[in-house]
Amino acid sequence: MTIKKPKFKLRPKKASKLHRKMGQAPGTVTYMGQREGVETVVSVINYDENEFNVIQTNSLEKIKEFKDSKQTSWVDVTGISDEGYIDSLGKMFELNSLVLEDVVNPQQRPKIDEYEDYIFGVFKMLYIDENQEIVSEHIAIILYQNSVLVFQELKDDVFNAVRDRVKNKSGRVRTRGADYLFFALLDAVVDNYFVVLEHLNSRIEALEEEVYDNPNSEVAHRIQDLKKDVLKVRRNVAPMKELIGRLEDTENKLVTKDTKLFLRDVKDHCIEINESLQIYREMSMSLMEMYMSNMSNKMNEVMKVLTIMASIFIPLTFIVGVYGMNFDNIPELHYEYGYPMVWGVMILMFIAMLVYFKRKKWL
Amino acid sequence: MTIKKPKFKLRPKKASKLHRKMGQAPGTVTYMGQREGVETVVSVINYDENEFNVIQTNSLEKIKEFKDSKQTSWVDVTGISDEGYIDSLGKMFELNSLVLEDVVNPQQRPKIDEYEDYIFGVFKMLYIDENQEIVSEHIAIILYQNSVLVFQELKDDVFNAVRDRVKNKSGRVRTRGADYLFFALLDAVVDNYFVVLEHLNSRIEALEEEVYDNPNSEVAHRIQDLKKDVLKVRRNVAPMKELIGRLEDTENKLVTKDTKLFLRDVKDHCIEINESLQIYREMSMSLMEMYMSNMSNKMNEVMKVLTIMASIFIPLTFIVGVYGMNFDNIPELHYEYGYPMVWGVMILMFIAMLVYFKRKKWL
Amino acid sequence: MTIKKPKFKLRPKKASKLHRKMGQAPGTVTYMGQREGVETVVSVINYDENEFNVIQTNSLEKIKEFKDSKQTSWVDVTGISDEGYIDSLGKMFELNSLVLEDVVNPQQRPKIDEYEDYIFGVFKMLYIDENQEIVSEHIAIILYQNSVLVFQELKDDVFNAVRDRVKNKSGRVRTRGADYLFFALLDAVVDNYFVVLEHLNSRIEALEEEVYDNPNSEVAHRIQDLKKDVLKVRRNVAPMKELIGRLEDTENKLVTKDTKLFLRDVKDHCIEINESLQIYREMSMSLMEMYMSNMSNKMNEVMKVLTIMASIFIPLTFIVGVYGMNFDNIPELHYEYGYPMVWGVMILMFIAMLVYFKRKKWL
Amino acid sequence: MTIKKPKFKLRPKKASKLHRKMGQAPGTVTYMGQREGVETVVSVINYDENEFNVIQTNSLEKIKEFKDSKQTSWVDVTGISDEGYIDSLGKMFELNSLVLEDVVNPQQRPKIDEYEDYIFGVFKMLYIDENQEIVSEHIAIILYQNSVLVFQELKDDVFNAVRDRVKNKSGRVRTRGADYLFFALLDAVVDNYFVVLEHLNSRIEALEEEVYDNPNSEVAHRIQDLKKDVLKVRRNVAPMKELIGRLEDTENKLVTKDTKLFLRDVKDHCIEINESLQIYREMSMSLMEMYMSNMSNKMNEVMKVLTIMASIFIPLTFIVGVYGMNFDNIPELHYEYGYPMVWGVMILMFIAMLVYFKRKKWL
Amino acid sequence: MTIKKPKFKLRPKKASKLHRKMGQAPGTVTYMGQREGVETVVSVINYDENEFNVIQTNSLEKIKEFKDSKQTSWVDVTGISDEGYIDSLGKMFELNSLVLEDVVNPQQRPKIDEYEDYIFGVFKMLYIDENQEIVSEHIAIILYQNSVLVFQELKDDVFNAVRDRVKNKSGRVRTRGADYLFFALLDAVVDNYFVVLEHLNSRIEALEEEVYDNPNSEVAHRIQDLKKDVLKVRRNVAPMKELIGRLEDTENKLVTKDTKLFLRDVKDHCIEINESLQIYREMSMSLMEMYMSNMSNKMNEVMKVLTIMASIFIPLTFIVGVYGMNFDNIPELHYEYGYPMVWGVMILMFIAMLVYFKRKKWL
Repeated sequence: MTIKKPKFKLRPKKASKLHRKMGQAPGTVTYMGQREGVETVVSVINYDENEFNVIQTNSLEKIKEFKDSKQTSWVDVTGISDEGYIDSLGKMFELNSLVLEDVVNPQQRPKIDEYEDYIFGVFKMLYIDENQEIVSEHIAIILYQNSVLVFQELKDDVFNAVRDRVKNKSGRVRTRGADYLFFALLDAVVDNYFVVLEHLNSRIEALEEEVYDNPNSEVAHRIQDLKKDVLKVRRNVAPMKELIGRLEDTENKLVTKDTKLFLRDVKDHCIEINESLQIYREMSMSLMEMYMSNMSNKMNEVMKVLTIMASIFIPLTFIVGVYGMNFDNIPELHYEYGYPMVWGVMILMFIAMLVYFKRKKWL
Repeated sequence: MTIKKPKFKLRPKKASKLHRKMGQAPGTVTYMGQREGVETVVSVINYDENEFNVIQTNSLEKIKEFKDSKQTSWVDVTGISDEGYIDSLGKMFELNSLVLEDVVNPQQRPKIDEYEDYIFGVFKMLYIDENQEIVSEHIAIILYQNSVLVFQELKDDVFNAVRDRVKNKSGRVRTRGADYLFFALLDAVVDNYFVVLEHLNSRIEALEEEVYDNPNSEVAHRIQDLKKDVLKVRRNVAPMKELIGRLEDTENKLVTKDTKLFLRDVKDHCIEINESLQIYREMSMSLMEMYMSNMSNKMNEVMKVLTIMASIFIPLTFIVGVYGMNFDNIPELHYEYGYPMVWGVMILMFIAMLVYFKRKKWL
Repeated sequence: MTIKKPKFKLRPKKASKLHRKMGQAPGTVTYMGQREGVETVVSVINYDENEFNVIQTNSLEKIKEFKDSKQTSWVDVTGISDEGYIDSLGKMFELNSLVLEDVVNPQQRPKIDEYEDYIFGVFKMLYIDENQEIVSEHIAIILYQNSVLVFQELKDDVFNAVRDRVKNKSGRVRTRGADYLFFALLDAVVDNYFVVLEHLNSRIEALEEEVYDNPNSEVAHRIQDLKKDVLKVRRNVAPMKELIGRLEDTENKLVTKDTKLFLRDVKDHCIEINESLQIYREMSMSLMEMYMSNMSNKMNEVMKVLTIMASIFIPLTFIVGVYGMNFDNIPELHYEYGYPMVWGVMILMFIAMLVYFKRKKWL
Repeated sequence: MTIKKPKFKLRPKKASKLHRKMGQAPGTVTYMGQREGVETVVSVINYDENEFNVIQTNSLEKIKEFKDSKQTSWVDVTGISDEGYIDSLGKMFELNSLVLEDVVNPQQRPKIDEYEDYIFGVFKMLYIDENQEIVSEHIAIILYQNSVLVFQELKDDVFNAVRDRVKNKSGRVRTRGADYLFFALLDAVVDNYFVVLEHLNSRIEALEEEVYDNPNSEVAHRIQDLKKDVLKVRRNVAPMKELIGRLEDTENKLVTKDTKLFLRDVKDHCIEINESLQIYREMSMSLMEMYMSNMSNKMNEVMKVLTIMASIFIPLTFIVGVYGMNFDNIPELHYEYGYPMVWGVMILMFIAMLVYFKRKKWL
Repeated sequence: MTIKKPKFKLRPKKASKLHRKMGQAPGTVTYMGQREGVETVVSVINYDENEFNVIQTNSLEKIKEFKDSKQTSWVDVTGISDEGYIDSLGKMFELNSLVLEDVVNPQQRPKIDEYEDYIFGVFKMLYIDENQEIVSEHIAIILYQNSVLVFQELKDDVFNAVRDRVKNKSGRVRTRGADYLFFALLDAVVDNYFVVLEHLNSRIEALEEEVYDNPNSEVAHRIQDLKKDVLKVRRNVAPMKELIGRLEDTENKLVTKDTKLFLRDVKDHCIEINESLQIYREMSMSLMEMYMSNMSNKMNEVMKVLTIMASIFIPLTFIVGVYGMNFDNIPELHYEYGYPMVWGVMILMFIAMLVYFKRKKWL
């Protein structure tokens, strides 16, 4: 599931973007992300129990045809930086200008808004890219009576499995309406969060070992990076539970009772993910604590070596200094066994210190 | 109550599992755990006030017979990795496909969902295994009008006491219906949590002593392990209170008013367990704090030894160095009592330092 | 108010107890505490506006007589480890088996349950024992139309003042019914919590001084003990506010409107106690913080002494070492004033170091 | 606004008080504070749009006259330790015995209780005394249809501005009823909290500077004192928002709609104060963090000095030691330039060490 | 977007201000800020679909004319320290005295109050000034049926883009009423918060690098400043979400359904900002943690250097001391190869120590 994507960014709107945006009226369609130049491609999957068609077209008329057909249509728009095209597409689909503004704003947090004729949702797909970094992709899904309109920033997505299920004539998705498709897409997005959790989990496990084996500042750095990533994932995932819960309770007739049962299942997954993130958060705090305690341990060890060396040899050095003095009259110097006696004393002191440190369990 | 079980795992779905699962439609029966190869065995206990039968059979027809009888049946399925069999059993019991998905998914967090004809609950049995590790076992219990269907991952369980009570003709469980059996099973699961609490508690007590006697990095390690285990247990136990509370308030006619009184009792136990876990959590944080403070104390002690040794002998070494100099003209060297005088000065300095450190309470 | 009691225990059910209990049906009367062998004694106080009788009897018939009389009866049962007697008494009072289970379970957290004919409450009396430790005693109070049934683990209690007020003919308690007596007992329990708070408060004050005067590891130990005691007390007191609040709002006719006004007063006390505990908690965390900061201060001081001693004498020792060398040709050695000049240089260096350390404010 | 008051106390009821109180029935009028011997003085301000009278009297009859008049009366009772007088006054004003108990209990937390004929409030006046300590004064305000009854522990108060506004014939307070006076008094109490906030704020600012300039253990002590004071103030102020909010929503006819508008304003102030206290709390935690980090910095500096001195001179001392040895046969000693060569080597080593430490940025 | 403004202040009311204010009745118009002497200037923009006029006037009559016209008027008052003028203007606009008090009180936290004829809001504009400090400016916006009255402390504001949109004949703002203008102003205020977030974000990124490269006490200082700034911004922004949410749900006819849709959009922005602030808060705590851990690392490094130097040379110095002794009878001194043998021993010891430290990974 590791997909090549640009690096994850969580910054608020870039200054350059901001200046472009800030003088404008709300509801203006301005792409606020950093993935410009992605070609806008529209593919439409049109199906019912018996038929199944896929076409790729940017022609608004053709798309409209599909939209108006009685079959279920999945209109998938890849690349949202072509503001003009998005705008006309949005108008054709009778989207509110505020909705269109959100469609092209990757900074928009997850949300679900119900309008009279459609339900509008913003979600975040999360991937692990080739550099093992977590990448976020903005996605907007709009549910109509007979069609689902999907906007995504990049070509790669997590929907291939859903496409396969739609192709498969005996799949449940073929017999149920657009709302089941909407749910299936949402389910695919949420399922992929588990991959990200797995990635976080393996990083925690790796760090747990390194904190013991080799606690250096690079490990501390990686713990902090982990904490930041957990924060980032939580930001994108945390609102999901409530959003889906609201959809489960909605009286909007676009969502059938059957689909609500499935939505409850997705909500359960979201709760589980949030709990895991909470646990990862506490674990990363424990890791940092452990790191600090290991640092402290190492310091203690260093200090002990110094203290033992100094405590043993400083007094001995003093003694040899005494008999290095040049006084005319140091009687010991002239004893026949003076020298070995001094050695004896020093060896005794040495042993005494060793015993002392042994007792203190420093050795 | 120590039962041989594989080690407790809290990881999100394994990558290998994930890839198998992620392309599938929701509601697909895929075993998501790590205890494959456990043979699926079904035993049925069938009883009313007067009769009591136990049989062991995998035949769906026989099971159906029991299910449809007017007597209360307890169908106990051990081993859930045989997806095909579970699927057909589920269909016979008219279980929703989403329910079946949860039955075979040990990652599913505790939950209780009410359906028209049955109440479906997922719980976690917790054991202490032979390595003194906490083991979690996934369990699903489904309450019907006249029967209770239990799925468990492994053969060992905490239900032997319930089996004995069912066997015992004068037991209350014999005269009450399936919902009382459902409660009794739930009660057995929750009662066993106290064993786990006891285990955690004794670990805290052991660590409390070691933190004082012998604060080394292995103790810190074990404190962190304790924190993780408290987190893990909390994850499995925390949702129980709310779930049972919801059951207590349900208007579902499967749960009689009498049984609700007993459910309130179980809920009280869950609240008590959650409170204990909260206290264990705070205690384990205190332990870590205490550990850090003892480390700091030890460092202080080490530093004091070094400082005392160095402060006493470094000046003395300087003095003996002075009289080791080879100047032609050092008058003191030729004093008759030069040598003893220097000793006198040094002893005075030694005593002065001792007094100084005594006053500072470093000795 | 210091009463001799066994030590405070907060452990979950003891293993030995657990094994005895775990195989049993819920509602079984099994004493779960650790104060076995306390003789069960029943004393009945029977009063109305005019009459007042106290008798001590274990005869169920006599107790029943009092219970059925129109006067208010206070049946006080001391010692709850005689399970058989408690069981028959409970049956005479028509107590639910789950209630009886709670009566003899000192691990039961505080609770108030309303039944058709009675209100059942479990509370915790807290004392300071002779070793200045906090002792908890399990107590169950059951309110009937005309009588109050009290179960307590031990003979000592906090109800003497209430007994005096009942004896006193002009006391308000004589003219009001059983519900006022129930409130008076609850009030006595809660009032005694203030004694425990006072005890905690004086420990905090003592520790505040010691943390400054003499921060050693025993002080850290006592701070952690304080934190644990605050946790323990909170555990017993925290649920009270909500329980009494629920009683205040009950529509149960056993509790008159007048008594509810008094209950509000008790609830206010509980809120006050909880707030104090919250503040004690924060204070004990501050104490630990202060302890760590004082430890750090002390370490700094130790290090400064070492650094000053070493920084002054190590260079001087080097200089005297230089002139202790045995080179044939060290011109300074033969200068007439070589020795005093070296002293001069060393004294200058000494003063320079002193000035340097003075400037750094290390001296 | 600095007023002479005894020191702020936050302790629970004193033991001596407790013993006196604990045997009593609830609703007994016993002064529970520590400011005994304050003479009880009653002053009555009686006014309407046209008239204005102030008298000072302890005569219950006179006070009753004012209370019963159609004009608005402000009965201000200073000194609440004369329990007998307070009791009779309370009875004249038909106060519930539980209310009277609260009136004379300075430990009572802020509260507002509504009774049929009056609204009873307990608040805390906070001052900064001459020792720059925060002093709390218990105050009880009771609102009747036409009069406001105020009990305060001490003579000093924050109501002078309100008195002036009542005296001033054109003031709004003259034309509005007792409920506006009640609000004005409450407003004066809350306004004075800002003085306390200002005091806390200036302490924080002073500490911020000292933590950088001179981080010693006295500063840590003062930070902890600050934290305690923030806790204490919060305890007295935090309940106010909810209390006033409840009064704003009351349907009690004693509070007119106009006055509710003003109450909303006071509530806004309370929210602001609580937010400031929250920020002060976080700031004091940051201060402590900063203190610890500065301590750590200082330790690092001390260690660096030691390490530099020792690392430079210990090897040099070893070298001079070498040439102080008395071997018969040390060829270097007899080199013509042996001595300057050794100096050269030592100077090179010295420079090398300096460069090394410079590179490590320790110098 | 960097605008010259005086420095950000978060202090409670200044003492001098307080004394002036505290004796006054509530509802008195007293400027409570610190930007006195800003000239009060009123500019009125008057427009409908076809017309557009801007005039600058302080004449109350002229302003009244505009207010009463059927066209939409935007009355923009700059400078609020001229209390008299503000008072008369307020009276002309029939503002409640409590509202006027808030208008001139920059300490007032954000709020929205609904009155019968108008909706009153207090907000905070936040800028980055030329010293890269965050500046807060108090702003009050009042919405009438046909006009919007804006009070701002200073001339600079964030409304230029709104002015341009009003000027532009084809802008949506021209065709919609006063409530849309109110929303547009609010939207401009909130949009500018993103600039402040960007500023905070870039500070965090800069600090993240410095904490690794150069962790000195100035960096710690800046981290604490960052934390304080995040607190300050949060204080001004946090209430916005709830305030706008309340406006979204209002039944006040001043706010049309269309505008509510836009308000929901602003609320979404506020939620996003609050989330970012929450993340910044956690990041700044992580920064401090990282700083402490790097400090600890550096200390360890310093200690290692000291320990290595001392452990290597202290024993060697002892050895050379031994052979510096003047005993008559030290046989080794007279060995032919005594001197090189000692060197050999010392070199071996040196190598042994190096190996030892290498093994410990200290080198």
